Formats: sequence, structure tokens, C-alpha cells
Amino acid sequence: MTARLAVLGAGSWGTTFAQVLADGGADVTLWARREEVAREIREQHRNSAFLGERELPAEITATADAREALDAADGVVVAIPAQSLRATLATFPALPAVPVLSLTKGIERGTDARISEILADAGSADPALVGVLSGPNLSAEIAARQPCGSVVAGTTEEIAGTFASWCAAPYLRAYTSTDVVGVEIAGAVKNVIAIAVGAASGLGHGHNTTASLITRGLAEITRLGVALGGRRETFSGLAGMGDLVATCASPLSRNHRLGLALGRGLDVEAAAAEVGQTAEGVATARAVADLAERLGVDMPITRAVVAVVDHGARIDQVTTALLSRSVRPE
Amino acid sequence: MTARLAVLGAGSWGTTFAQVLADGGADVTLWARREEVAREIREQHRNSAFLGERELPAEITATADAREALDAADGVVVAIPAQSLRATLATFPALPAVPVLSLTKGIERGTDARISEILADAGSADPALVGVLSGPNLSAEIAARQPCGSVVAGTTEEIAGTFASWCAAPYLRAYTSTDVVGVEIAGAVKNVIAIAVGAASGLGHGHNTTASLITRGLAEITRLGVALGGRRETFSGLAGMGDLVATCASPLSRNHRLGLALGRGLDVEAAAAEVGQTAEGVATARAVADLAERLGVDMPITRAVVAVVDHGARIDQVTTALLSRSVRPE
Repeated sequence: MTARLAVLGAGSWGTTFAQVLADGGADVTLWARREEVAREIREQHRNSAFLGERELPAEITATADAREALDAADGVVVAIPAQSLRATLATFPALPAVPVLSLTKGIERGTDARISEILADAGSADPALVGVLSGPNLSAEIAARQPCGSVVAGTTEEIAGTFASWCAAPYLRAYTSTDVVGVEIAGAVKNVIAIAVGAASGLGHGHNTTASLITRGLAEITRLGVALGGRRETFSGLAGMGDLVATCASPLSRNHRLGLALGRGLDVEAAAAEVGQTAEGVATARAVADLAERLGVDMPITRAVVAVVDHGARIDQVTTALLSRSVRPE
Repeated sequence: MTARLAVLGAGSWGTTFAQVLADGGADVTLWARREEVAREIREQHRNSAFLGERELPAEITATADAREALDAADGVVVAIPAQSLRATLATFPALPAVPVLSLTKGIERGTDARISEILADAGSADPALVGVLSGPNLSAEIAARQPCGSVVAGTTEEIAGTFASWCAAPYLRAYTSTDVVGVEIAGAVKNVIAIAVGAASGLGHGHNTTASLITRGLAEITRLGVALGGRRETFSGLAGMGDLVATCASPLSRNHRLGLALGRGLDVEAAAAEVGQTAEGVATARAVADLAERLGVDMPITRAVVAVVDHGARIDQVTTALLSRSVRPE
């Protein structure tokens, strides 16, 4: 039976993932905030604001009316930016009692809430039905239908399997997991580390330094995730290390680009203006630093990023955080 | 007291590391196989065959006589290619009873021996004094004195501390470890994975695929290392993940470049000719595949690399090894 899926959010990732779902055989209704975006997708099969001239599958329809998207959906996929998710959900009807898969990466500033918590809290989703997808999934490569793997986590193997069944496009291999918290934290915090790695590159450091930041970055992501109940092995898998390595390697990543601009000496406003789209990692860095402090987890790279974006610290503190320690056991 | 250190091997890594040691305050004698290389280093402070016009510190002297290099040395550093190490040691006097640090990466073809085992076996080194260095240490970046970290492993914290004291150059931060086997396996097998990652890039795959190969590559390196008695955490540190990520990111890595050439359709001889210098990973891939089979460790990426370089398999098998599995738990 063809699954009817609602994708909430028509940015580049939401729209690209709607293509994945359509290529896997689903009927997809994409909700866009702006009616003109919905109309262009519906009538011209394009989303020129985010994906240029790329033609979308005809199986994707679109609406700016969330009720219409959610009505009769067998499942919901959420790709609304983390910091506006709560406010957006407040304008929607309650999410239906169907599996809900989050593609949104981030931690909410102010509440330190994870996306799955916001969906349950502000979207009235059943927490048992909420899951999350993460992996080495640069959206431009997936839009071009290049093969990759991804992890889909649900509260049970059965629900994770349902999410995997939605990802039946031949170029996306879905691996199931029941570690919702781990996958969610890995996907969120990697954006913070990507800023630090971009900054190091912008300062002129080479691959030895960036590889060290990526390695120590994953260690601090893992410490936070495990403290929140995630499983260590999630962080050494595709959702953890895979996503982090892909994000930090890519000149396409917004967070990486923001870091590069900071490294070249721009302040955070100027850097954000240069990148154009939202660099989620900035807001998430603040939330993660709060969370880490509250839990007593040491996250020196995240602290250095917050010092730069919030307190005007010099960007070379990001690399100093890595290199300033004396000889000691690793 | 100034340490007198012998560095055996005047290739790009041995010569660069001689600079690190000299910058850290040691008196360094570099052994070169060819007298003309030794003479150029001694008289002109250059190693033009490997490091171009870069000027070496005046504290480095050089000789083609191993006895002269080893005589009165407080410590020995080994940077001779893995597959010729045993034969080279056979022409040397026995290594003195001082700490011996291996920079050599690889597993010996035919015997499946690790470098530390060859040093004890063919070099008469005391196994308790043999250690190993590995980390995200692209030699061109270190030669340029860009900051980085590295792991030095010894059989005790004290010996590891001695190795760290040699690495006192301001741009190299040494972390100590007592996991000699883990650091050695990490450094050796990463070259095999780098070939696979290069091949994927050469085939036109993007960062999602290469990040997946790096992630699954580290998982198979870890499985092998743990089976040999290494510690899991070594592989998620700078010697494991750090070195792998740096090697796979860099267009300077010979193994990565060999993989790229394979990916573009060259056979292994043509690819090796294009890269010029030894791509250690080819020989090591065969030894690692043997070792893995003997120990019952699953290493699908290594197997795919061996199939390509030894059995003329199609290069896209490397990525097929990653992507051919059906939906399943990660």
C-alpha cells in the first residue's frame, strides 16, 4: 500500500527528503510556510528558492495549509528549523497519532529541549511514535541521487522499521536504531563542531588540526550524548562520526561555511550574513553549552565556539582550546 | 641534558620528524640509505629528493653508516618503509638497549608482523623498550610547523613519557598511551581505508559516501585492533580516528592518491606509477586481509581493496561493499 506522508518544511533538506520519499514510492504532501513556495512546487515541480532548477518528482504535491498536509497522513516527517519549530507547531493542529520522523537538527535555545521533546510538547505528538533520522547526508548530494546511508531511530525496532520502509529510494540505505536520544544529539551537536572546524580552516590551519578537532569534537558529543542516555556506539556509527565527518568535509555545509567566515576574521553577524541561510549551529552551541554545564560534561570546543559567537572572544581560542594542554595521557 | 637521537630513514616522514626532534632540542643523527642524501643533509641542510628546498635545522647531521648513527644514541626513531624494514635491519648492528620509537606504518607482507615485532625480531630491540607514534600527522603540514597532536605509545607510562619528551617542538603536542598494539594497528590499517576512500572519490562519489567509508573503515580497524589486544578507546582517539580522518581528507596522502587513480580506472601498476612513491597501503592491505581471516574478523572494505589490487576486481566493488546490504540494524 502506498504510504501517504506529510513533510513539514520546504527548505532544502525537507524538499530533498520529499524527493527521497517519493522516489521510494510514497505519496508526499510538502508543507511550505509560504504559499508561493507551495504553489511553485505544486504547479512547476520546483523549489527555486532552495534547490534552483532541479525538477522534483510529480508525486510531490505541496500546500501552505498544515491541516491539508496532515489530513489522512500515514506518517509525518518534520524538517522545520529547530529555533522556530515550537512557534510553528503552535499554528498547526495537533500532530496525528502516526509515526513522526524528525529531520530537524538542533537543541532549542532557552529550554535546551531536543527536537523530539518539542514535537511531543508543542506538537502533541505521542513520544512513543517520535523518531529521528541522521547520517552523512549532505542534501545537495542526496538531491543528486548519489548513494548514501542513514540511521533512522525509533522508540522500538518496529517503529524504526516503519521509518526505514519510507526510505526505500534506491540511493538511500537506512539502518535502524532504537537510540533516539543518541541519534538526535549526534545530529544536533555536530553543527557546533563544524563551526569550530570551519574556523580552524579559515585561520589557515591544515588537515592535521581539523582532523584533531573532528576527533575531539566527536569525543565531546559522545560525552554529552551518553550523559543524556544515548548509547556510545551510536556516536561511532553513521549518525555520529559519519555525519560529523561529512559535514566537516563539505564546503556546502552552512555551519562549516559560517566557521570559515569567522576564521577569516568576520564577526558573527557579518559571517551569518555572508552564509545567508540559517547556520543552526550558532543557536545550538549556546543550548549545548548550557546543557553541558548543567550535566557537568566537559565540552571545551563547544565552549570556545560560544565564547566566539556570544562573547566576542578571538577565534583562535577555538584552536587554543585544542592545543593548549601540556603533555598528558590521551 | 640534550638527548642524542638516531633517526633511521631519511624519507619525507623520517626527515620531517628529525626536524621535530631538533626543534625540540635534541641532537639528531639521520641515517639515509644513500650516501648522497646523507651528504646533502649534512652539508647543505636539505633533502631535495623528499622535501624540496626546505631548509633543515643545523642540529641535524646525517650519515649512511648505521653504526655511526646508533653509536652513543640515547634513543632510536625508526622511519624505514614497512616492507623493506626487515632486510634493512639485517644490514645494521643490533639496535642499542635504549627506547626505540617506530614511525613506520604497515604490516609486513608474508609474516603479518607488526613493526614493533620486526624491530624486536630482526633488530634485536628489547620489546619492552619499543614504542610507536601515530596521529593526524601529514608530514608536509608538520614540516611547515603547523600545530598538531600525536599519540606516543610505550609499554609503560614512563617509556611513553620519554618518547613524549623527545617531541618537545612547540607545534607538536604528544599524548602518551600504553596501547602499543592499538596505536600500531590504527596507523597501519588506516592506509588501506585511505585507498578505498580515494577510490570512491575517483569514481565520482561525494562526501556522503566517503564519510560512510571512513566511519565503517574505522569500525573494521577497531575490530581488528581489539582482536589483537588493542584498546577500543585508542581507535576513537587521535591515533585512530584522527589519523584516518586527516589521511582521507588530504590530497597529499600517497594512499589516498593511489585510490583516486584506481577510481579513475587505472590498474594498480599504473596507479602506483602515477603516485611515484611507495603507497604502503597496498602491501598492508594483503597482510591485513590475511590477519583478519586468521582471526575471524570481518573487514569488508579491506577485502574489497585486496580484491581490486590483487585480483583485478572492479573498483566499484569497494563502494558496493558498503552499500549492498539490505535494511538492518546498524
